Amino acid sequence: MGENSESVSGQLEAYCRVRRQSEMLCKPLTVEDYVVQTMPDVSPPKWHLAHASWFFETFILVPYVSGYRPFDVRFHPLFNSYYQGVGTPFPRDRRGLLSRPSVVDIYRYRRHVDEAMTELMERLDDRAENRDIHLLIELGLHHEQQHQELLLTDIKHILGNNPLVPVYAEDRFAEEEEVPVPLRWIKVQGGETAVGHDGNGFCFDNELPRHRMRMNEFLLANRLVTNVEYLEFIDDGGYANPLLWLADGWASVQREGWQAPLYWRKMDGAWRYFTLAGEEPLTAEEPVCHVSYFEADAFATWAGKRLPSEEEWEHAAGTAGLWPGNYLESGRFRPQAALTGEGVLQLGGDVWEWTQSAYRPYPGFRPWANAVGEYNGKFMCSQMVLRGGSCATPESHIRKSYRNFFYPHNRWQFMGIRLAQDT
Amino acid sequence: MGENSESVSGQLEAYCRVRRQSEMLCKPLTVEDYVVQTMPDVSPPKWHLAHASWFFETFILVPYVSGYRPFDVRFHPLFNSYYQGVGTPFPRDRRGLLSRPSVVDIYRYRRHVDEAMTELMERLDDRAENRDIHLLIELGLHHEQQHQELLLTDIKHILGNNPLVPVYAEDRFAEEEEVPVPLRWIKVQGGETAVGHDGNGFCFDNELPRHRMRMNEFLLANRLVTNVEYLEFIDDGGYANPLLWLADGWASVQREGWQAPLYWRKMDGAWRYFTLAGEEPLTAEEPVCHVSYFEADAFATWAGKRLPSEEEWEHAAGTAGLWPGNYLESGRFRPQAALTGEGVLQLGGDVWEWTQSAYRPYPGFRPWANAVGEYNGKFMCSQMVLRGGSCATPESHIRKSYRNFFYPHNRWQFMGIRLAQDT
Amino acid sequence: MGENSESVSGQLEAYCRVRRQSEMLCKPLTVEDYVVQTMPDVSPPKWHLAHASWFFETFILVPYVSGYRPFDVRFHPLFNSYYQGVGTPFPRDRRGLLSRPSVVDIYRYRRHVDEAMTELMERLDDRAENRDIHLLIELGLHHEQQHQELLLTDIKHILGNNPLVPVYAEDRFAEEEEVPVPLRWIKVQGGETAVGHDGNGFCFDNELPRHRMRMNEFLLANRLVTNVEYLEFIDDGGYANPLLWLADGWASVQREGWQAPLYWRKMDGAWRYFTLAGEEPLTAEEPVCHVSYFEADAFATWAGKRLPSEEEWEHAAGTAGLWPGNYLESGRFRPQAALTGEGVLQLGGDVWEWTQSAYRPYPGFRPWANAVGEYNGKFMCSQMVLRGGSCATPESHIRKSYRNFFYPHNRWQFMGIRLAQDT
Amino acid sequence: MGENSESVSGQLEAYCRVRRQSEMLCKPLTVEDYVVQTMPDVSPPKWHLAHASWFFETFILVPYVSGYRPFDVRFHPLFNSYYQGVGTPFPRDRRGLLSRPSVVDIYRYRRHVDEAMTELMERLDDRAENRDIHLLIELGLHHEQQHQELLLTDIKHILGNNPLVPVYAEDRFAEEEEVPVPLRWIKVQGGETAVGHDGNGFCFDNELPRHRMRMNEFLLANRLVTNVEYLEFIDDGGYANPLLWLADGWASVQREGWQAPLYWRKMDGAWRYFTLAGEEPLTAEEPVCHVSYFEADAFATWAGKRLPSEEEWEHAAGTAGLWPGNYLESGRFRPQAALTGEGVLQLGGDVWEWTQSAYRPYPGFRPWANAVGEYNGKFMCSQMVLRGGSCATPESHIRKSYRNFFYPHNRWQFMGIRLAQDT
Repeated sequence: MGENSESVSGQLEAYCRVRRQSEMLCKPLTVEDYVVQTMPDVSPPKWHLAHASWFFETFILVPYVSGYRPFDVRFHPLFNSYYQGVGTPFPRDRRGLLSRPSVVDIYRYRRHVDEAMTELMERLDDRAENRDIHLLIELGLHHEQQHQELLLTDIKHILGNNPLVPVYAEDRFAEEEEVPVPLRWIKVQGGETAVGHDGNGFCFDNELPRHRMRMNEFLLANRLVTNVEYLEFIDDGGYANPLLWLADGWASVQREGWQAPLYWRKMDGAWRYFTLAGEEPLTAEEPVCHVSYFEADAFATWAGKRLPSEEEWEHAAGTAGLWPGNYLESGRFRPQAALTGEGVLQLGGDVWEWTQSAYRPYPGFRPWANAVGEYNGKFMCSQMVLRGGSCATPESHIRKSYRNFFYPHNRWQFMGIRLAQDT
Repeated sequence: MGENSESVSGQLEAYCRVRRQSEMLCKPLTVEDYVVQTMPDVSPPKWHLAHASWFFETFILVPYVSGYRPFDVRFHPLFNSYYQGVGTPFPRDRRGLLSRPSVVDIYRYRRHVDEAMTELMERLDDRAENRDIHLLIELGLHHEQQHQELLLTDIKHILGNNPLVPVYAEDRFAEEEEVPVPLRWIKVQGGETAVGHDGNGFCFDNELPRHRMRMNEFLLANRLVTNVEYLEFIDDGGYANPLLWLADGWASVQREGWQAPLYWRKMDGAWRYFTLAGEEPLTAEEPVCHVSYFEADAFATWAGKRLPSEEEWEHAAGTAGLWPGNYLESGRFRPQAALTGEGVLQLGGDVWEWTQSAYRPYPGFRPWANAVGEYNGKFMCSQMVLRGGSCATPESHIRKSYRNFFYPHNRWQFMGIRLAQDT
Repeated sequence: MGENSESVSGQLEAYCRVRRQSEMLCKPLTVEDYVVQTMPDVSPPKWHLAHASWFFETFILVPYVSGYRPFDVRFHPLFNSYYQGVGTPFPRDRRGLLSRPSVVDIYRYRRHVDEAMTELMERLDDRAENRDIHLLIELGLHHEQQHQELLLTDIKHILGNNPLVPVYAEDRFAEEEEVPVPLRWIKVQGGETAVGHDGNGFCFDNELPRHRMRMNEFLLANRLVTNVEYLEFIDDGGYANPLLWLADGWASVQREGWQAPLYWRKMDGAWRYFTLAGEEPLTAEEPVCHVSYFEADAFATWAGKRLPSEEEWEHAAGTAGLWPGNYLESGRFRPQAALTGEGVLQLGGDVWEWTQSAYRPYPGFRPWANAVGEYNGKFMCSQMVLRGGSCATPESHIRKSYRNFFYPHNRWQFMGIRLAQDT
Repeated sequence: MGENSESVSGQLEAYCRVRRQSEMLCKPLTVEDYVVQTMPDVSPPKWHLAHASWFFETFILVPYVSGYRPFDVRFHPLFNSYYQGVGTPFPRDRRGLLSRPSVVDIYRYRRHVDEAMTELMERLDDRAENRDIHLLIELGLHHEQQHQELLLTDIKHILGNNPLVPVYAEDRFAEEEEVPVPLRWIKVQGGETAVGHDGNGFCFDNELPRHRMRMNEFLLANRLVTNVEYLEFIDDGGYANPLLWLADGWASVQREGWQAPLYWRKMDGAWRYFTLAGEEPLTAEEPVCHVSYFEADAFATWAGKRLPSEEEWEHAAGTAGLWPGNYLESGRFRPQAALTGEGVLQLGGDVWEWTQSAYRPYPGFRPWANAVGEYNGKFMCSQMVLRGGSCATPESHIRKSYRNFFYPHNRWQFMGIRLAQDT
C-alpha cells in the first residue's frame, strides 16, 4: 500500500460513504435476489455484503482492537473468500446453498462492524504507530469498492439468467441512437517509459514497483469497439472459423456454444440483450461488452489488428486525459458511445479493456508482507490484464496504473475491446 | 383414480385444509430458506408451493374453467416438474438459481389459484359430467400432500447442510431415552393372496390392478431397525466390507465416502445427527433413518436376513392394524421407538420401509389416460419400492397399497429398515 | 451349481474345446485390437483371455492344487474383474491403459493354466470329494463362454468405433433380402406355472430356486421386431417424442443424442450399419439389434404393446421348441430373419430379448456359498433381464431358464425386441 | 522460418537421420506399447510416428508434388493434430481408442512418405523458387524432432503407469551416487539487451522478432535444484501449506492429491521413482524432474527465491557456454548431476527449466503466413515458457532462443527448476 492519502477525519467519512454505497447498490433487490449463485464465479449479494465486513473484522478489528467481540465466529470460514492464512474458506461454489445467515443478520453484522470501526477510527490519530491501521482501513475500503463492482456484475448475472428478466434499475437516459466519433488511430511514441504506480496515493501491491521499459511506437484506437462493429465479425462467421481463435478459445467456443457476447439473444432474426434495465434491442453504437479475452483476441485477428499490451495502454493513458468517464456513479450501469472528443477516448470507465498481457508480477514485485499478502500475488497465473475500469467501477477506486485480471474465458464482467496495431 | 370418496362440500373443505397445511409447514422458514436448492434432488420450498398450484391451474383451471386467466403464463415452464405433455419443463437442477418469482409473488399465485378453485368447487355439483373434475381435484390434493412430505425433507436438507444448523421446530417431546419392544419375528402365512388397491376410495394408477399371486410363508420383524442396532453394523466395519454390498452400492459407498446414514456426524468420538430440532446426540433406540436402499440391503445381509418384498409387506399389513401411526400431523417430524404393542408395529408412519421390490408395473397396469398419465408410469425403472409412509407423510394421504419409490442411492427421505426372513 | 452333467473325461474334452473357442474368436485380430477399450463397459480382448484364465487359477488351481505356482502374482489384481473377496481389482475403466502384459505373455499365461488344469483333470476321478472341483470347472467353462460373447461384442465395439471400419469376418452368406414370416400373436395360457431351473444339468445360482407363480393369459409375438418395423418408429418421430419414453430413457436420449440403434449411421439419406462384416446398407428384414431397454420399451409403447415379463417368456419357451437357433457357432455373428415356421420363433439365438422384468432374486434365492458367491447376486439391482441368447452366444451355454442382465441404457450387446400384449 | 542452414544434399541426409531416429526410439516397444494413451495429453507412439509423416505429406507432398498419391486419405483427419486449416482433426483424447491402422501399416505409411520425400529432395536444387520447400522440409524435421521428445515422455508415461513397471532401456551408466557442484549464485549484468533469435539458421516463428529490452541485474543459480533439495521442501510440509502456492496451484494440489513429483512413490518409508530404466530408489543428487510450474513456483517461494524470466534466462545463456549437454543422444534418458565446472551449468539438456514468463508473442510477432501458421501462435495463452531442452531433446534441435511451453499444471515432460533472485 502506498501512503494514506486522506486525513484521519476524512477516512471515517470515506468509510461511511463506501459502506453506504454497497448497501445502496442492493436497494433494488428482493430478499431472494441476495441468496442465489448462478455460477461458481458469481457470489450471492449477501455474501459480498458479509465478506466486505469480514475483511474489516479479520484484518483490523480482531488483531488491533483489544476486547473486540466478533459478531459470530461461525461467520469466519463462511465469509473468508480465499485467505488460507486465516483459516480454511467455505467452498466458493457452495455459497449459493446457504440460506442462513439471513439478509437481516448480515445487515446486523455490518452494523456491528461499522460500530466497532467507527469507534476505532474516532480514537485513532495520526501517530506513526497507527500507520498500519490507517493503511489497512484504506485497503479495506478499496476492497469493498472492488466488491461493489462484483455486486453489480453478479446481480446482472442473477437477473439476466432469470427467465422473467427482471429490471434492476430503469434507464433514465435518452434512448435515441447516438453516433459515436469515427474510429481513428492515434500514434503513441515509443522509447523508454516507466510503468507502474508512481507512489502518490493508494495502490495495490501488484502495481509496483514502477519500472522502466522499452516500447515501440504503436497506434491505438481512439475509442472502443462498438456493437455494430462486433456484429460484422459475427455476421462474417467469426464464431465458426477456428483460424481466428486461440486454441483454448476455440475449445471454449465449442464447449460453451458461444455465438455472441454474453447476454445477447437472437429473437425473430434480431439481436436483443439483457441490460440492468431489462432486455431490449441491441444498441448498435454502444461499446461491445461481456466478451471474453478469447473473443477480443479473435475479433482483433479478424480485424487484422491486435490488442494493446498493458504497458502500451498505461503509456498511452499517461498522455491522454483519463478521468472523468462513465463510472458506477453515473447510475447508468452500461457503457456509452463516445460522442465527441479528440485523442484517446473512453480510457476510464465504460468497459474494462482486455490487454494482450498475461497477469504477471512486475520485475522486483513483493506481495504485502502481512496477512493481506494473499490479496493479489497468488493469482498471477493464467489470467489476463484488463485496464481502465468500467461503468460498474467506483470513480474513486480506479487509477491509470490499476491492473484488473480475469481468466481468458470470463465474460460476466463489463469487459470490452480497444484495438491497437504496430506502425 | 378410484371413486371420489368425498362429498362435494367435503372436497372444498379438504382443499382448504390441504392448501393451508402446505403453508403452515413453511411458517418457520425465512424468505431465504424458500430459495436454495442444496442438491439436484431437492427443490426450493417456494418451488414446491408454486408447483402444487401449477398442477391445479394446468390440469383443472385451464382446461375446465372457461375464461380462466392464468396468473402468469411465464410460470408454466418454471413450475412444470416433468410433464412433457404440457410443455418443456425448466431444468430441474437449476431451480435454485431462480430468485424470482419472489416468495410474495408465489403466495399471490396461490391465492389466485385458490380463488378460482374455490369458485369452481362452489358451483360444481355431483352430476356425472363433473366426475373427471372431482377426480382431478382429489388427485391434485394428494399431489399436494406428496409435496408436503417433500417440503419437509427438502427443508431438512437445506437446514441440515447449513454450517449454522438452524432449528426448524423445537422438539416439544420428552427427551428421555425410551426402551423399544424387543425384536420379535412374526410368522406371516403364505398361499395365494391379492395385492393392489381394492377400489375403495382414492388410489394412484400404480396401485392397480389388484391381482392375485402366490406367496411363501415368511417371518417379518415386529418393528423397525433402531439406531443402536445399525451402529453395530457400523462398528463391525459394515461400511468397509465390500462383500456385504450390492456392486452398485459399494460403488456409491466409495464415491460418496459414506460412513454412516445421512445427517450423522462423529464429534469427539460420539455420533450426533441433525434433526429438524437441530443437531443433537444420537438417540439410540429411535428407528434408523436416512439410509439408502444399498445400506438397507447391506445391513440385512450383514444381519443374515433380507428385506421384505412389497407384496409380503402389503400382505402382512393386511392382517396387522396399520393405522394410526407417527405421521406428519404429530408435528414431531422424526421417527419414534415402538414402545408397546403386539404384532407388526410401526407399519404406518415413522419411516418409509425399503422393500426388495423394484418399482415395476403391476400385471395389466395402465397409466391414466389423460394429461396426468405421466404421473407414475414413466418412473417405473431403476427405482425401488418403499411402503408405509413416514413421520413426514400426511395421515390422510397414506394407504396400505401405497407404493412410494426412490433410486437405491437416495437417502434424504425419511427412509428406514424392517427385516424379513424365510421360514 | 446343479449337478455336473458331464463325465470326467468329457469335462477335459469340454475344457479343451471351450478354451480353444476363445482363441479362435481372436484369430482375426491384430495385436493392436487386443489392447484398446473404447468405453468403460468394453474390456480389451486380451483382458478377456487373461481373465478367463485368472478365474481357473484363482478359484481352482490356487486353492485345490498343492504346489501350484501362479504364472505371475502381479496378474491377480489386473485380471480380477470384481471379486472383492480375493483382493482389490484393478479399476475397470483403466483396462485399456495397460500395454503390458503383452498378448504373447497372455497366451503364455493361458498355456500355463491349461497345463495345470489338464494335469489336474487327468488325475481327478468321480469320487464325491472331488465334486466341488468338478462343479467349479464346469462353472469356469460357462464363465469363459460368457466371455466369448463379451469378446465378440467388445470386438464389435472396438472395430465399429474405428473410422476405418475394419472387417472382422466376411459374411459368407447370401446377401439377398429375405422375407420373414408375418407377425402373428400366439396365445399363451395363464394359470399357475413354475419358473426357474428344473435341476437337470448346470445352471447359475440366479436361476434358482424354481418356484411356482400365477400368470395371466397373454399374447406373444411369433417373431422378433425387424429393422424395417423399427424404422417406422424412427420415421414417426419416436426419438423426438418424450411421451413414449421412460423418464430415465428420455434423459438418455437427450444426453447421448440417440437417433437410432447403436451402429446405425445415416449417409446420403439412407441408413447404414456396422456389422462384423463391415459397414453396409441396412438389411430391412433382419431383427433390430443394439437397442437399449429404454428403446425397446419406447418402441413397445409406440406400438401399443408391451414387453413380456421374464416369467412369461420362460413359460412360453417351455411350450415352444427353443433350440436350435442362430448362435455363435453359425459363424455369422448377426441376427437373421425368421423365414418359416409355426409357433414362437427365434426364442433361442439371434438377439437377447429385453423383458420388462427387473433383475431381482427369485424368492428364496441363495448366492453360492463359497468364493464365487459374488458371481451373480451382487448385481441384482437396477438392471433388466434379457432372455434367449444371441448370435454371439455359444449354443451349449444357453438354457430356457438362463437370465442375462444389463442396465437399461446398455446397447452394445446383441439385444433386440419381442413384443407381447394382454388378452 | 529463418534461412535453411543446410545444403541440398545435407538436407536429404538430415531427413534420413531424423526419420531413422524416431524409429530407433520405438525399438524397445512391444506392439501393444504403440497403442495406448494413458491420459489425454499423451499420444500413442504409433500416432506420433504417423503424425510426423502426415506433416510431410500434408504440407509438402500434397501441395508441391504433382501426382503424389496419399497413402490413405482416411489417415488425414486421424493424424492431423490441430491444424484446423486443413480439416477437422480427430479428437485428441480418443487417439488411444484406435487399434487401426496397425503399427505395420503405419510403418508402411512412413515408407511411402519417405520414398516420395526422397524422390522430391533428390530432384530439388538450390534455385530460389524451391526455397519454400526447403524451409518446409527443415520445419518438418524440427517438427519430427519435437515429437521424438514427446515420444519419449509419452512412452515414459505409458510404462510408468503400468503396474508391471516395464523397463524401456537399461541404464548402462554408473549407479554410484555422485556429488554435484555446490550451489552458487552467478551475478548477471542488467542493462539493455536483445532477446529472440538472431537470424542465423532455423528458428520457429515464436522466437521472433529479436527485440531489445531493459533488464535489471540479477543472480542465477549455477545449477539445477536436486532431488535432495526438493525433498527438504516436501519434508517441510510444502505440499500441505497453501501459503506457498499460487491459487490455481493449490487447487491442483488438492484436486490431484499431489504429494511429490510425478513418478515418485513412497514405499516402506523410502522414496522411489520410475525412470525409463525401471523403478528404483531416488537418486538424491540428480536434478529434480517432472514437477509442474506450480511446484517449481511453490518451491522457489519456500526457498525465498524466484524463477528466472525467459529473457533473463536467454540473457544469461548468451554469456555462458550453452552446448554441449545431456541430450537425447546420450541415451541415458534422465537428468544428471552437474559434477564440475564454473559459471552457469546445465543450461542445455537435463531438464526443461520453468521460467516465470507466460508464453506470449514477442512485440511485433507474426505467425508464419502459410498453412503452418497454426504451428505456434494459437497456443500463446495460459501456458508458461520453459527453456534449455532436456535429456529427451535432440541436440541438433535446441537453441538458446528456443521457447518451449506447457500449461502450469503439466508434469509429464522432463521439467525441472533453476532458481534466481534479485540483487
